[in-house]
Amino acid sequence: MAFVVLRQSMSTMQCVLVASADACVSTQMVKFATALSKESIVDIEGVVSLPKEPLKATTQQVEIQVRKIYCINRATPTLPINLEDAARSEAEFGKAEQAGEKLVRVGQDTRLNYRAIDLRTPSNQAVFRIQCQVENKFREYLLSKDFVGIRTPKLIAGSSEGGAAVFKLLYNGQPACLAQSPQLYKQMAICGGFERVFEVGPVFRAENSNTHRHLCEFVGLDAEMEIKEHYFEVCDIIDGLFVSIFKHLTTNCKKELETINGQYPFEPLKYLEKTLKLTYEEGIQMLKEAGTEIEPMGDLNTEAEKKLGQLVREKYGTDFFILYRYPLAVRPFYTMPCYDNPAYSNSFDVFIRGEEIISGAQRIHTPELLAKCGAECGIDVSTISAYIESFSYGAPPHGGFGVGLERVVMLFCALNNIRKTSLFPRDPQRLVP
Amino acid sequence: MAFVVLRQSMSTMQCVLVASADACVSTQMVKFATALSKESIVDIEGVVSLPKEPLKATTQQVEIQVRKIYCINRATPTLPINLEDAARSEAEFGKAEQAGEKLVRVGQDTRLNYRAIDLRTPSNQAVFRIQCQVENKFREYLLSKDFVGIRTPKLIAGSSEGGAAVFKLLYNGQPACLAQSPQLYKQMAICGGFERVFEVGPVFRAENSNTHRHLCEFVGLDAEMEIKEHYFEVCDIIDGLFVSIFKHLTTNCKKELETINGQYPFEPLKYLEKTLKLTYEEGIQMLKEAGTEIEPMGDLNTEAEKKLGQLVREKYGTDFFILYRYPLAVRPFYTMPCYDNPAYSNSFDVFIRGEEIISGAQRIHTPELLAKCGAECGIDVSTISAYIESFSYGAPPHGGFGVGLERVVMLFCALNNIRKTSLFPRDPQRLVP
Repeated sequence: MAFVVLRQSMSTMQCVLVASADACVSTQMVKFATALSKESIVDIEGVVSLPKEPLKATTQQVEIQVRKIYCINRATPTLPINLEDAARSEAEFGKAEQAGEKLVRVGQDTRLNYRAIDLRTPSNQAVFRIQCQVENKFREYLLSKDFVGIRTPKLIAGSSEGGAAVFKLLYNGQPACLAQSPQLYKQMAICGGFERVFEVGPVFRAENSNTHRHLCEFVGLDAEMEIKEHYFEVCDIIDGLFVSIFKHLTTNCKKELETINGQYPFEPLKYLEKTLKLTYEEGIQMLKEAGTEIEPMGDLNTEAEKKLGQLVREKYGTDFFILYRYPLAVRPFYTMPCYDNPAYSNSFDVFIRGEEIISGAQRIHTPELLAKCGAECGIDVSTISAYIESFSYGAPPHGGFGVGLERVVMLFCALNNIRKTSLFPRDPQRLVP
Repeated sequence: MAFVVLRQSMSTMQCVLVASADACVSTQMVKFATALSKESIVDIEGVVSLPKEPLKATTQQVEIQVRKIYCINRATPTLPINLEDAARSEAEFGKAEQAGEKLVRVGQDTRLNYRAIDLRTPSNQAVFRIQCQVENKFREYLLSKDFVGIRTPKLIAGSSEGGAAVFKLLYNGQPACLAQSPQLYKQMAICGGFERVFEVGPVFRAENSNTHRHLCEFVGLDAEMEIKEHYFEVCDIIDGLFVSIFKHLTTNCKKELETINGQYPFEPLKYLEKTLKLTYEEGIQMLKEAGTEIEPMGDLNTEAEKKLGQLVREKYGTDFFILYRYPLAVRPFYTMPCYDNPAYSNSFDVFIRGEEIISGAQRIHTPELLAKCGAECGIDVSTISAYIESFSYGAPPHGGFGVGLERVVMLFCALNNIRKTSLFPRDPQRLVP
């Protein structure tokens, strides 16, 4: 028998405190304890013992016979969210409904409004621990491949990469904006001699996209590297990196994945040891054969991506694949055209469960071609002159990619909303808490 | 003898290419190569061999007898910075001056204007590799102590923590600002049940501080944790964390430190196995005895911090120490007052070489006291109501700290300017590149 001092919340210890003849719990103590509101924080002194009968409704193998109890922090008696309600699965709702019982549902907005409570559900604890592991493994793998972690500025002059909407602000009187990606800076780092770099940092998009998969601020996992011979070198890094992330999660986050599965059931991700690569043309062809007509030189829409994901899963048995050689016209201005056909580009997207998750390409590394392609895309080249000039001082061929951390976790666990994988999400409607 | 294919810049290979009777280098090839501008990127095919005489002015042990040379990317003939000039030490300037020779100096602003070239100097390559290692070790140590890495939003409503100037912007029509620190969010994560969290991310300060140690955007290393009994638990984490970072750099980054030392000579940092802790009062007393009068309930200015650093070094033989129990009045509103004397606080600063580098404290975890202290500090409590409310739903005692990554590297290597340890620094005058 061991004597312990524990700190926990009232919600998690309530089943243990029962006054009885053989325990040392006085009725006064039970009175004091039951008067404490749920989620109050208490310190407990007690003796650990094996229960005479197995404890119900818990996975704990021991019980603590309480000797003393101190209230460290008293929670408000009426909580805006009941933790039990927030932790319930669809199956539990279904069972209760069959039994004619009506259980409280906690909506996504209520959860986010009271995030400090909502985060205490077992599945949320698991989601953000997995998120941390994805970042750890991302860094670890790239460091092992001689990448250097860098930190580039988020406050930048001009219009970022142009195109999509940016958040604008004044910087000591000068017009500035928030970086939509570390694209230009990670390329400058390559020109600066770092050979291979990565960055994990916030990315800002002032888009009015109210979907299950868009955020106005998210965490970008970015990498950029010198290319020796072919941009498939970048694809190979992605292949090794993501297979190692998936394996790591499957092997080392079993408990967390089971916990998430308990509230939000999902099928494990199917992936191959060597990641499947298809050309964009092959993808279009597969869709065509399945009756989905796509403009061959246009981009895939969300629906077509979903469909292609299904087709690839059926044919190749994987939820994770690379689609490469996209039409040049649908890629950013700094994308390298294919040497054999400039209507196509040395670029690729990567998909998980039919959703695009990674975008990458070889970049143009000569200033003349870069300025020409920028102007053709309608960019005011004078605002990015420092970027273009970087390539005048000696620039190796290079390429890279970017991934959204929240999307990786969402799609790995097949969650239905990216707000579930952002600690304090930012969408067009939400700026607090 | 090995056959190799190498990619490098003309500047770094120029000493190898010499036409001679016994080498396979034709005079045509020498003509082609010498016509290439410095910093042009070339691919070289050649044979590795031991030189007959040791190579001068290089640490290379082998030479490559060039068979073929391809120009991959041609740099502009007149570079804004000559790499040799940018890599020179003060000692070299001194020697040249004595010899009546005038060498070109590259100013800090020119370096930053052409950062993509400047970053190629050996010392810059070393600085940013060390920076990456500091972040790696920070994460690794905290992960080993059961911290979870989190990602909090940089776009926030209200006035951040109040006080210092913030960057303001419009968020879908709502007034918003950039986070001055992840303070409020890492505390909400603790209330959300994560027990111990850390974050590495950008921090924004719209201050017009034109000093050697301030930036408008820098990388914050932040941590927050539950406190079981005393806020020294936080100091103990800092102690173990920084001693492990210092040891890691000294042991595993020898080459990088030597390289930096070659251009910017510095004395190795002195630190103790167990970090010295002094009370603020003891610090004041030491300064007083040395003839520096300080307002006992005020804060230390930069000069007094420098002086105290010297005194501590002389008396205790360390450049790294913790000063704790600061007057409450000079700390942020959310700082916990001392239980025995509310004029003081459960707070601390940490110094390296006489400069403050870390600020930390136990935080107030009851909403009533927090609202009271906020109002007393002149904060519009309504703008941070979500933050204060988080403590109504059960909040454990907790504390934490924040460090600037650039300052750690600057002070560890005793560099004279924080712009040397930021890849693309942002100060009140600089927003590009």
